[in-house]
Amino acid sequence: MELHSPNTPDQNDKSQQSLTNILIADFAKQKITRIFQEAGITVQGKNDWDIQVHDERFYNCVLMKWSLGFGESYIDGWWDTKALDQLIHKLYTSNIENKNKNLPGKIDKYKAKLINQQTKFRAQKVAHVHYDLGNDMYAKMLGDTMQYTCAYWKKAQTLDEAQLDKLDLICKKLQLQKGEKILELGCGWGGFAKFAAEKYGVEVDAYNISKEQVEFARKRTTGLPVTIHLSDYREAQGIYDKVAAIGLCEHVGYKNYPILMQVAHRCLKKHGLFLLHSIANNFSTTHCDPWFNKYIFPNGMLPSVKQLGEAMENLFVMEDWHNFGPDYDKTLVAWYHNFDHGWPLLAEKYGERFYRMWKFYLLSLAGAFRARRIQLWQVVMSKDGMPGGYESVR
Amino acid sequence: MELHSPNTPDQNDKSQQSLTNILIADFAKQKITRIFQEAGITVQGKNDWDIQVHDERFYNCVLMKWSLGFGESYIDGWWDTKALDQLIHKLYTSNIENKNKNLPGKIDKYKAKLINQQTKFRAQKVAHVHYDLGNDMYAKMLGDTMQYTCAYWKKAQTLDEAQLDKLDLICKKLQLQKGEKILELGCGWGGFAKFAAEKYGVEVDAYNISKEQVEFARKRTTGLPVTIHLSDYREAQGIYDKVAAIGLCEHVGYKNYPILMQVAHRCLKKHGLFLLHSIANNFSTTHCDPWFNKYIFPNGMLPSVKQLGEAMENLFVMEDWHNFGPDYDKTLVAWYHNFDHGWPLLAEKYGERFYRMWKFYLLSLAGAFRARRIQLWQVVMSKDGMPGGYESVR
Repeated sequence: MELHSPNTPDQNDKSQQSLTNILIADFAKQKITRIFQEAGITVQGKNDWDIQVHDERFYNCVLMKWSLGFGESYIDGWWDTKALDQLIHKLYTSNIENKNKNLPGKIDKYKAKLINQQTKFRAQKVAHVHYDLGNDMYAKMLGDTMQYTCAYWKKAQTLDEAQLDKLDLICKKLQLQKGEKILELGCGWGGFAKFAAEKYGVEVDAYNISKEQVEFARKRTTGLPVTIHLSDYREAQGIYDKVAAIGLCEHVGYKNYPILMQVAHRCLKKHGLFLLHSIANNFSTTHCDPWFNKYIFPNGMLPSVKQLGEAMENLFVMEDWHNFGPDYDKTLVAWYHNFDHGWPLLAEKYGERFYRMWKFYLLSLAGAFRARRIQLWQVVMSKDGMPGGYESVR
Repeated sequence: MELHSPNTPDQNDKSQQSLTNILIADFAKQKITRIFQEAGITVQGKNDWDIQVHDERFYNCVLMKWSLGFGESYIDGWWDTKALDQLIHKLYTSNIENKNKNLPGKIDKYKAKLINQQTKFRAQKVAHVHYDLGNDMYAKMLGDTMQYTCAYWKKAQTLDEAQLDKLDLICKKLQLQKGEKILELGCGWGGFAKFAAEKYGVEVDAYNISKEQVEFARKRTTGLPVTIHLSDYREAQGIYDKVAAIGLCEHVGYKNYPILMQVAHRCLKKHGLFLLHSIANNFSTTHCDPWFNKYIFPNGMLPSVKQLGEAMENLFVMEDWHNFGPDYDKTLVAWYHNFDHGWPLLAEKYGERFYRMWKFYLLSLAGAFRARRIQLWQVVMSKDGMPGGYESVR
């Protein structure tokens, strides 16, 4: 028996292509729906953490680009959820990545191995793309302290209190004494320099490559013994009593962890203390999540215990290692509420896509901290060891 | 012009050899004296930390065998000092090793790379050589608690108080609750098992390969919900709420750090805690000091941050890392005083060479901790991360 098609060859090709697309779309929908279902998330379900898909292209986008596609399709408005942080928390605690190891998103790993993405020139990118976004937006989100790192919620009730407690915690861990000289590697909007100079009577030299931040920090610390250098942390010179790197390590890149340690070591007096405050990973990686790399922190990367341990060898004695990752969950949720509340005044300048991008950034990161997938560390190290030992502060 | 020797060829050889020996001895004396002088130590000097050399072979012995020769010549009575701990502290803080990198003592490194020195069979060696030495001697040295790991001196006045505070610190860090099941990997004379069962109402399964210790521990915990297995830690089975490894890691060997972590992970329930208490190094090594390897802890080895970090990857969230190394200085000095005080009752059984060996062990280790050359860590890890985070205890 022979089968004869009633259509022309051209018509045949088109209908076959169309059929293939339908089959792929159907496969993607089934696969992605099943993956979410295994994590306790129902597509078009009724729980706060469930997903409402508005555009069917969502499934294929996630299947092809994984976490990058998940974030991008959110920015595009192809899907929504009432509780983005809860959704991400569920995804991470469900072990979704280990169950789906053959899916895409590996290319960034190899790129990072070939190139030092955080040379002094390349390091400028995140300064322009992220930190120079606009101080108006950051002021709305961060509140009065303009602190853009994890707050410390042990005793605090509000974001501002928690940020001031974090700054005080760092000063106490560094055992700051009046008249001491402090080096700060990466200084944000100058919040730590101002706090330490005012409350502890120390002198601060700080390094930062974001023009907007440096201008703001210089104004904020006028009249205080604070010098803000518009310069890469690797340019730091001189000998200091203490060194702090608060939220810098995330931008340094795994090839430069030893350099960060060497700079701190070179600039410290004997027995001096170095405090490193950083978001961190449970395992060693050489790349960032591709969505965060593309949209939020170009060339960012989170260190592991092993990577920092290797970088500090023969330079420092590790005195104290404090993990308060879940405090970043609270901090990010507080930032999101500030951002969301202040949005009417920002909407015209930044636009709807920015809102969705920023919301995804803040709440998905909150979910990752809640799932204990990533951590927040304060590591205190001493040059040549502190005689008599170091007493932890919490 | 020709030179004629008045001696026969045989006489010539002998006198030349004798001359060579004199020259070598002279070179060794000059070199070693200068090395000590650079560290602030005078040979035949009057300070407590100075060295009194009784036998000239000392210099050559140290030159040829470095730290091994230094310790061996002490046992042989070739030299003395009033304050061995102060002497060692001075040697370590003077950076003596980096200044004299070409001296011997490297062979153990390569041996350790070729062989897993801590297979289940080989691991027995330290049990026989060290831990089975004799409970009478350990009872004199350690006091009532029979605790052979670093005590916690934050509030304590006496060794016994400091040891009980250490045990309580571990129980608090592990957040022990009545009725919980605890796995202990390596249990010494059962001090922790007894304390945790009595004070916190938990059940303890412990593993140890030293017969003398196991017998003692079984008697000591009679009537308590404690089971002591005369078995290697790698044999542990079952699921527990918490896992403790107190002073085991020093005997595990760098090739087995991942196995130790895997055993703890395998035997823990989800979100369970693992506390690792260990002496540690500021940098990664694959061998022990040769004198300690030969005389005190066969096949012992101290981990680094990097080595433990690598071993815990993909298994644990690092929740808290506490360094109280200087407390081991105090502990070792207290042990030495107990040992020295109790010596008249032990002398006949153990002999003079043992006294000098043991004194060198205790006081040189105290000096190394005082110089911050080695550390004492308590690391708390959680399986899958503790929801809401972990609160440090100090």
